[in-house]
Amino acid sequence: MKHARIRHHGQIVNVTVDEHLQVTLPDGSKLDEYDVEWLPPAEGTVFALGLNYADHASELEFKAPEEPLVFLKGPNTLTGHRQVSVRPAGVDYMHYEAELVAVIGKTARNVSREQALEYVAGYTLCNDYAIRDYLENYYRPNLRVKSRDTLTPIGPYIVDRDDVNDPHNLVLSTYVNGELRQRGTTADMIFDIPFLIAYLSEFMTLQPGDMIATGTPKGLADVQPGDEVVVEIEGIGRLVNHIISEKEYEESLR
Amino acid sequence: MKHARIRHHGQIVNVTVDEHLQVTLPDGSKLDEYDVEWLPPAEGTVFALGLNYADHASELEFKAPEEPLVFLKGPNTLTGHRQVSVRPAGVDYMHYEAELVAVIGKTARNVSREQALEYVAGYTLCNDYAIRDYLENYYRPNLRVKSRDTLTPIGPYIVDRDDVNDPHNLVLSTYVNGELRQRGTTADMIFDIPFLIAYLSEFMTLQPGDMIATGTPKGLADVQPGDEVVVEIEGIGRLVNHIISEKEYEESLR
Repeated sequence: MKHARIRHHGQIVNVTVDEHLQVTLPDGSKLDEYDVEWLPPAEGTVFALGLNYADHASELEFKAPEEPLVFLKGPNTLTGHRQVSVRPAGVDYMHYEAELVAVIGKTARNVSREQALEYVAGYTLCNDYAIRDYLENYYRPNLRVKSRDTLTPIGPYIVDRDDVNDPHNLVLSTYVNGELRQRGTTADMIFDIPFLIAYLSEFMTLQPGDMIATGTPKGLADVQPGDEVVVEIEGIGRLVNHIISEKEYEESLR
Repeated sequence: MKHARIRHHGQIVNVTVDEHLQVTLPDGSKLDEYDVEWLPPAEGTVFALGLNYADHASELEFKAPEEPLVFLKGPNTLTGHRQVSVRPAGVDYMHYEAELVAVIGKTARNVSREQALEYVAGYTLCNDYAIRDYLENYYRPNLRVKSRDTLTPIGPYIVDRDDVNDPHNLVLSTYVNGELRQRGTTADMIFDIPFLIAYLSEFMTLQPGDMIATGTPKGLADVQPGDEVVVEIEGIGRLVNHIISEKEYEESLR
């Protein structure tokens, strides 16, 4: 089953979703994809992986890491399906990153790698945009690269774990204005989901709703205001996002 | 006025506190410091500063930073006044860090340095423990250094902004088992609170309850299970914490 969070008549509502993104409300009534405001499908702490695909690490001229490179993202970064992300004024390089996201389903402490997937509620996908201009800082990636408002569209929904046969054998794709720009497979992850849950839960208690964004393969390129960016993961879903300028964003908030 | 959050008969209650840490409940009844479970006094996103006092940067043999080194901490790290923090088994170096914390009072976007303090609800203090063993990682400081369960005692309460004459002229002290081990002044911060709020709010929307832990001066040393660690900031408060071993912690959770 697919679970989403939407805003409907000003209320946040938990809904189920079919393969055509038709939404079923708790009272059984149905709404089309375009008639709802899609929210991030979960609300916990967001963990994100850097350089977790060897081909991407080498694209950025980094060595593959010897331990997971995990950082936290603020809740301000999250936005939903068919929402906008803001390209800051005056930057040279904003790239998309298609990522598989594991959503935690129950409290996890000191979980073994063998049991780790039992702690996963399901999977979603995100586009973990980065502003590469600010990459070189003592803290990598710093907040100006990765924690800006609106720069992590996520969703549209969470697919139940049992509906995903093998999360480590899925094709990830990114399309910019309909053109394929990034393609990889989750089979190429350096640190897989069971490893990450075991690693993190050794020193942090993971809570239901926490999200682990597992990194992106190679194929990154700059995107500009006006671009439609679609990330797609086979068997999981398709997340649509539009880039707007900072000026357009400021005007929309007035 | 001083505001705290406590757990009382299983409920989370917002209370006021006097200078002797006597708590006043919403119904006007009073409780002593030792009769309540102190919780972190706010619940938002936690921002923490690295190397934000020049003497501490030089103690760690780093150059003073040219821009604020800000990282996020997970909610799992927070604990309250008179609670325990866990020294992980098998590590060589766990140090305290006395820090002044500014708590955001209203939504802040693109706030100027001049107006920044209007967005502060008040101040509290924290002890931003670090496990130095894991410092050297591509992501510095990584989650194993700074985002472990229980490693950020904070509180006991928030002092209203208007009750603090000058947040940049306060003595910070840390006492281990009653012995003074760290002393500095917030006058030595490299990036002050107005600068930090202006910097962060340029690319992130800060929300009421968000906390900015502003870094620590020099004087760090290892602490061990059994130690009582007290951080104190003149005119703000005194935060008491006890270190326990991982084994004791695991037993306490059973």
